Amino acid sequence: MKRIGVMTSGGDAPGMNAAVRAVARRAMSQGLEVYGIDYGYAGLVAGDIFKMERSDVGDIINRGGTMLYSARYPEFAQVEGQLKGIEQLKKFDIDALVVIGGDGSYHGALRLTEHGYNTIGLPGTIDNDIPYTDFTIGFDTAVNTVVESIDKIRDTAASHERTFVVEVMGRGAGDIALWAGVAGGADEIIVPEKEFDIAKIAENIQALRARGKKHTIIVLAEGVMHADEFMTQLKAYGDFDARSTVLGHVQRGGSPSARDRVLASKMGAYAVDLLLQGKGGIAIGTENNQLTYHPVTELFDQKHQPDLSLYEINKSLAK
Amino acid sequence: MKRIGVMTSGGDAPGMNAAVRAVARRAMSQGLEVYGIDYGYAGLVAGDIFKMERSDVGDIINRGGTMLYSARYPEFAQVEGQLKGIEQLKKFDIDALVVIGGDGSYHGALRLTEHGYNTIGLPGTIDNDIPYTDFTIGFDTAVNTVVESIDKIRDTAASHERTFVVEVMGRGAGDIALWAGVAGGADEIIVPEKEFDIAKIAENIQALRARGKKHTIIVLAEGVMHADEFMTQLKAYGDFDARSTVLGHVQRGGSPSARDRVLASKMGAYAVDLLLQGKGGIAIGTENNQLTYHPVTELFDQKHQPDLSLYEINKSLAK
Amino acid sequence: MKRIGVMTSGGDAPGMNAAVRAVARRAMSQGLEVYGIDYGYAGLVAGDIFKMERSDVGDIINRGGTMLYSARYPEFAQVEGQLKGIEQLKKFDIDALVVIGGDGSYHGALRLTEHGYNTIGLPGTIDNDIPYTDFTIGFDTAVNTVVESIDKIRDTAASHERTFVVEVMGRGAGDIALWAGVAGGADEIIVPEKEFDIAKIAENIQALRARGKKHTIIVLAEGVMHADEFMTQLKAYGDFDARSTVLGHVQRGGSPSARDRVLASKMGAYAVDLLLQGKGGIAIGTENNQLTYHPVTELFDQKHQPDLSLYEINKSLAK
Amino acid sequence: MKRIGVMTSGGDAPGMNAAVRAVARRAMSQGLEVYGIDYGYAGLVAGDIFKMERSDVGDIINRGGTMLYSARYPEFAQVEGQLKGIEQLKKFDIDALVVIGGDGSYHGALRLTEHGYNTIGLPGTIDNDIPYTDFTIGFDTAVNTVVESIDKIRDTAASHERTFVVEVMGRGAGDIALWAGVAGGADEIIVPEKEFDIAKIAENIQALRARGKKHTIIVLAEGVMHADEFMTQLKAYGDFDARSTVLGHVQRGGSPSARDRVLASKMGAYAVDLLLQGKGGIAIGTENNQLTYHPVTELFDQKHQPDLSLYEINKSLAK
Repeated sequence: MKRIGVMTSGGDAPGMNAAVRAVARRAMSQGLEVYGIDYGYAGLVAGDIFKMERSDVGDIINRGGTMLYSARYPEFAQVEGQLKGIEQLKKFDIDALVVIGGDGSYHGALRLTEHGYNTIGLPGTIDNDIPYTDFTIGFDTAVNTVVESIDKIRDTAASHERTFVVEVMGRGAGDIALWAGVAGGADEIIVPEKEFDIAKIAENIQALRARGKKHTIIVLAEGVMHADEFMTQLKAYGDFDARSTVLGHVQRGGSPSARDRVLASKMGAYAVDLLLQGKGGIAIGTENNQLTYHPVTELFDQKHQPDLSLYEINKSLAK
Repeated sequence: MKRIGVMTSGGDAPGMNAAVRAVARRAMSQGLEVYGIDYGYAGLVAGDIFKMERSDVGDIINRGGTMLYSARYPEFAQVEGQLKGIEQLKKFDIDALVVIGGDGSYHGALRLTEHGYNTIGLPGTIDNDIPYTDFTIGFDTAVNTVVESIDKIRDTAASHERTFVVEVMGRGAGDIALWAGVAGGADEIIVPEKEFDIAKIAENIQALRARGKKHTIIVLAEGVMHADEFMTQLKAYGDFDARSTVLGHVQRGGSPSARDRVLASKMGAYAVDLLLQGKGGIAIGTENNQLTYHPVTELFDQKHQPDLSLYEINKSLAK
Repeated sequence: MKRIGVMTSGGDAPGMNAAVRAVARRAMSQGLEVYGIDYGYAGLVAGDIFKMERSDVGDIINRGGTMLYSARYPEFAQVEGQLKGIEQLKKFDIDALVVIGGDGSYHGALRLTEHGYNTIGLPGTIDNDIPYTDFTIGFDTAVNTVVESIDKIRDTAASHERTFVVEVMGRGAGDIALWAGVAGGADEIIVPEKEFDIAKIAENIQALRARGKKHTIIVLAEGVMHADEFMTQLKAYGDFDARSTVLGHVQRGGSPSARDRVLASKMGAYAVDLLLQGKGGIAIGTENNQLTYHPVTELFDQKHQPDLSLYEINKSLAK
Repeated sequence: MKRIGVMTSGGDAPGMNAAVRAVARRAMSQGLEVYGIDYGYAGLVAGDIFKMERSDVGDIINRGGTMLYSARYPEFAQVEGQLKGIEQLKKFDIDALVVIGGDGSYHGALRLTEHGYNTIGLPGTIDNDIPYTDFTIGFDTAVNTVVESIDKIRDTAASHERTFVVEVMGRGAGDIALWAGVAGGADEIIVPEKEFDIAKIAENIQALRARGKKHTIIVLAEGVMHADEFMTQLKAYGDFDARSTVLGHVQRGGSPSARDRVLASKMGAYAVDLLLQGKGGIAIGTENNQLTYHPVTELFDQKHQPDLSLYEINKSLAK
């Protein structure tokens, strides 16, 4: 193996650049050449490929987004798209690949491996919704961004004795809501993985008010419903001087947290080591604080589970 | 004069606590007693009033929100409400007042002065929409919060080559949009004080794309229209892979910026000095980098004007 | 068991307040009364003890430092001091205790347990130097603070092509240096757990310069030597336009990161649960992403080991 | 005039990139070509000069440091150096220049103007020590960085009841200390422009302690003396459990504040407009919230004065 490629795919996440840097630098330190592929699978097919130098990844460890750009490219599910990608890999003499992205990106990784190009997936997404990894690259930063926002909202909520519904990202997963809810001192956390009863929530808000609490903060995972709909349902039970806020795309950006940079650095280096061992068709994770890997096929059968102990803990701490 | 009262009124703003601290500490250093009035005019009428000690305002200069809470209380426009307030001032032997809030709060200040209780208004609002002051307390912090959000959104916008419409606060005024637009490197700034042509904006986005620019950021003042409506209008001209974000209440919170803390400290101290000179029915401002004051009646006739030179500068810098 | 006490001891760390809140709220939710002990063991002996209400721990989850204050109190190593502390516990009818602090605090916890007052230690220190826990409360925040500082220093280092030696905290442990070094993209990380050769470091700086790198950043753990001494040694090999910075006490403060708040919340709740099970003389940890506990006596025989894989990874990524 | 050059000189400051962007974009929008000169006067002499495109200044408005690098180059005081610089300007057909830097940079600007190349200086320094401008580019960011550090130090100071001496930058000027001291709620601010009596400071600390204040924070401008020396002098009067912190080079870095970005944008655009009007040998300032300019020769006779009203205000607020 002489040349590897690296790309980012799917939604961008803070720490993707740190992962690209780690892949590139580790590979170069092992005597490999590294090619960057812009715009994920779309760029692979189109041949948006360039030789990376050490300095290309200098001063990017602290940058949000992805220097390799990203794109969604469903066409890569078709054999035709895959063959075009293979053609480009041949043209550039790339022997193996690292793909940083969500689990959607892993299907492509599997296809390329089947075609003889070992490809390893790194979990890069703020949503933390990937099986066989406790944390994804970008999750810690997104949680911190949400917590900082909740801290700010608490200022105004406390000053005006209001109820705030804060809608956070996570696609179908409640991880961001759970972590940010506990860390933000939320009174209620509403996630797809747990049923909720809006009448009880309304009751709880009233109880908190009766007890003299100055504000109520409800963290709502986007996978449950939109904040507006939640507000409509809540207002059936009372006014609560409620406001809603949809944190939106700020959650995807920002300089990565230390944790995300370290995780990305470790995973990126590990991916190169595994490629050098001839591995492919696998996805890297961190489980119980150790780097692990699994065949991506196993991930397709698994459903990610958030740490629901956080939900229970918050019940007792919020009261 | 032996005792003064201090309250916050209207929407909360970062730096209100710094202003409360400045009023309290300056007054105490001049031998006055200070009473805090919770919940603005509502609390005045209800008698939510307490004697402040030095330590009550310790370690609050860096806190967002307002330790005196705030409330909107339109009933104070009625003579009945005013008389109840006067009764409380008598009861607590308070001779004069400082009110920190938006221009809505100034009407109450005028009424109290007319009843014989000199009252001075400090401009505390993130919106910067008060006449006879270049800056209000809270504005600088809000602009920085918006700019940090734009920086994060730019990460993801650049990674995906998207157009982002970022709706920012400001009520009827475009100040936050103008400052944050210039500081955030926005491609378009849309404010109530300037007409805009959505067809030309669409054209401009296309031109930027054609030139190879990776992202387009449009800062929209809430006083113009809601982001959703803007998106609908924009999409009539093309898709632009556009997303919208409504920054919402995070703009009101957060630890105040250095600028806001210094402004609040200066204005708070100045208000006490003016009360000691027997002044009342006035509002404090900062004009051309100097502390000034004007009768609040003059403010009612004036309309605040944002610094529109920022609009023109941005035209040439964004291209 | 009806009443528990909670205190913070030793150097303060971000997240101590989140831990105090978790202990207090969890205990109250289990029907216990909670007493706060100010100033650690010194306050215990002096009787600086007060009944905590729910609201006492409201809005502290986001605050740095410790609302219970802290103090070093070596006198508690003497039986006399311990007996005075026991007297206070009797006086206030406190049945058991949670102590949040460094491993110095654990000796006191053991003594109190031996006297019949079950006491559980939580690892609260930025240094991460406690055995049987992968992470301590405060470590993640401190690392992020250091990384943000390195990011700022890199701005100026790159602008002027300089070498920067950044001295970070950690007492005898290299954890902060290792994590912040990897996350900050340091060229060299110097920790007590690894030998270093200043001649080789000088050589490496020259090689980086020759290759065109604009700046060199060296992260130095305080446990190795003082930055000034390091500078003196380095300058024997060349000028390198080197500057040093001692980050100092900013590393102890600041609003805790999401990770630290969640860790503190989990550990605080767990401590109460274990007290209710009649446990004492133990310290809580997080190992392989699971909450664990060990007799504090075991900790005294163990030496904490940092994650030295970070050192090796950085070698290949920095080049 | 067809071509202008732009460079940064002296110590770097946050907002220099925003100023470079504004100069480049404004000039291009006026049909001018723009050349970037790397490494200040040293690069001018060496011919480190390149044609800038629009995209060269894309996504730099939010970056600290300077993309054009900087260097001190005392040799430019000699005619020989100046003539070499002129030669390069001829070679690249550059007609006029903008130099962003401290007042040291202005001497070079004057020389180039005298040689027939109109050169305009922009005040880019964190120190705020330039005459005829109320604020320099970078000052607001540096003050905010210091204030955030003081906020963190206050956490730990309050937890341990300590005295902290925080040494801040500013070269010979007390501006950073004054602004950050007021905004940080310092108990004492020590600046070169005001005499101080260490015995009285010690007395004041003791009085604050006696009154029950949990911590004392002293902000010391580097222009007065080094923190270590101050500590030695202070300790002659008592222990005060004092610690010192030298904030160091973090003060020079970081993403610029909104205020600095706006100031840099306005000044950069204004410089181009003035060059187009045939002006040279001048320095731009902001006075009483208006853009102004003065012959640089006038600046050499003037001494910058900080806003000493801040010193007086702090006296009454700190108590």
